[in-house]
Amino acid sequence: MQTVDLSKFENPIFDRGGGRSKEALWLAVRQLLFQSPFKNYRLKASLLRSLGATLGTAFVCKPRVQITFPWRLRAGNNCWIGEEAYILNLDHVTLGNNVCISQRAFLCTGSHDTTDPHFGLIHQPITIEDGAWICANAFIGPGVTIGRNTIVSAGSVVTKDLPPDMICGGQPCVPIKPRVLRDAP
Amino acid sequence: MQTVDLSKFENPIFDRGGGRSKEALWLAVRQLLFQSPFKNYRLKASLLRSLGATLGTAFVCKPRVQITFPWRLRAGNNCWIGEEAYILNLDHVTLGNNVCISQRAFLCTGSHDTTDPHFGLIHQPITIEDGAWICANAFIGPGVTIGRNTIVSAGSVVTKDLPPDMICGGQPCVPIKPRVLRDAP
Amino acid sequence: MQTVDLSKFENPIFDRGGGRSKEALWLAVRQLLFQSPFKNYRLKASLLRSLGATLGTAFVCKPRVQITFPWRLRAGNNCWIGEEAYILNLDHVTLGNNVCISQRAFLCTGSHDTTDPHFGLIHQPITIEDGAWICANAFIGPGVTIGRNTIVSAGSVVTKDLPPDMICGGQPCVPIKPRVLRDAP
Repeated sequence: MQTVDLSKFENPIFDRGGGRSKEALWLAVRQLLFQSPFKNYRLKASLLRSLGATLGTAFVCKPRVQITFPWRLRAGNNCWIGEEAYILNLDHVTLGNNVCISQRAFLCTGSHDTTDPHFGLIHQPITIEDGAWICANAFIGPGVTIGRNTIVSAGSVVTKDLPPDMICGGQPCVPIKPRVLRDAP
Repeated sequence: MQTVDLSKFENPIFDRGGGRSKEALWLAVRQLLFQSPFKNYRLKASLLRSLGATLGTAFVCKPRVQITFPWRLRAGNNCWIGEEAYILNLDHVTLGNNVCISQRAFLCTGSHDTTDPHFGLIHQPITIEDGAWICANAFIGPGVTIGRNTIVSAGSVVTKDLPPDMICGGQPCVPIKPRVLRDAP
Repeated sequence: MQTVDLSKFENPIFDRGGGRSKEALWLAVRQLLFQSPFKNYRLKASLLRSLGATLGTAFVCKPRVQITFPWRLRAGNNCWIGEEAYILNLDHVTLGNNVCISQRAFLCTGSHDTTDPHFGLIHQPITIEDGAWICANAFIGPGVTIGRNTIVSAGSVVTKDLPPDMICGGQPCVPIKPRVLRDAP
């Protein structure tokens, strides 16, 4: 019988995307500024950009958000990241325009090869298309794309792609009914 | 086809309930005292009261609890809020007497109008009646009332009212069996 | 009808396992060092050991992990605890060798007697056997044993024992399919 042996874990292929000093700088900045209870939206967006994030206008990063690698975050215009949301972006996380990630939502790009006794790291990008809303406490797994305007209800666990224009929910998360947007006033 | 446009989001109707300086004071106090690992139950209760909370006797607010607006929190006697519980009370959260909110539970009074391209804010109160217990990691959505003595099991997701005297669970959370209390010793 | 009365809660039987000063020391150390964004794996392992934890080699405790009582934590070799994992070990938490507890997972050894109007504390140990993996956001309740090499999928809620060598998921969490490990390279 095979035995898991985490002492053999190594990821020679995994590129962290930033040097040690850049990563340490980010950790310090994150602790000092991103754990602050104050808004500082523009300052935080500027810092994320200076560390490699590609962010559109009006990027709102609420207090106590965790982002692993700024250099693997892309967002369009008018995106919001809620308090205590966790963007574990070992791989790219891409948000379209007008995307809302609510409080304590968890976007997780990392996993492990469950057949590998050495627990090899797997990472796959996550894409949240224009107008989609990831509600509070929802979990989005690696490789998932959430379609345009789709809503992932609070506490849902998403491991597969979801189509556009749907309200989805559950564990596993599935489409429940269409999202109908009325005319703008 | 309608398009979500978060740049048009505004809430002229939403009353935050405290002035800017009061809110800033609360954010600073919360960061300094409520993130502390030490108990300070009486001090925390006094500060919450001085900022507008209505709290009964023996209010226990464990470390690392997040409360959004003290002025929208009401609790009876002998209520406990567990570590890392999140009371997102844009609207009133009302706890009866002898209510326990366990660790990492999330009481969320806020949502958005899913049909509105401008993503209008919705907020509805949450009421947890006497003797009810919201277990660890449970999520309670806007507008929900949890009946007297009812238990919401760990990790449950509640979006509709739950009746009194039941043990409930699941996602969505439903009543499973009666809660029977034995005679007090 | 019986009434819950939390003012009568007391746990004369519950032994916190450390004196007041030891516990206060741990709270201060935890706040200063375990909330730090930097790795400090060896230092953290040494401190946990000096406060009574029994840890094997290569113990990796990532930033922002919450451990309630170091003196009720046992782990074999090559164990990993992910960021924001919460080890609420009022009772013993025992990890075998090569166990991975992922980000925001919650191992909860505490509960309450739901029939007791005074809400008596219940605590039962949790055991995670060799090679098992508790994925992100999963919840493990009191008294649970997770079998050797078994995987608890992200966001699952586990309240009963799980057998070895299975991939499990859901709320409640159940075995879904065997975990097959290939030969080590």
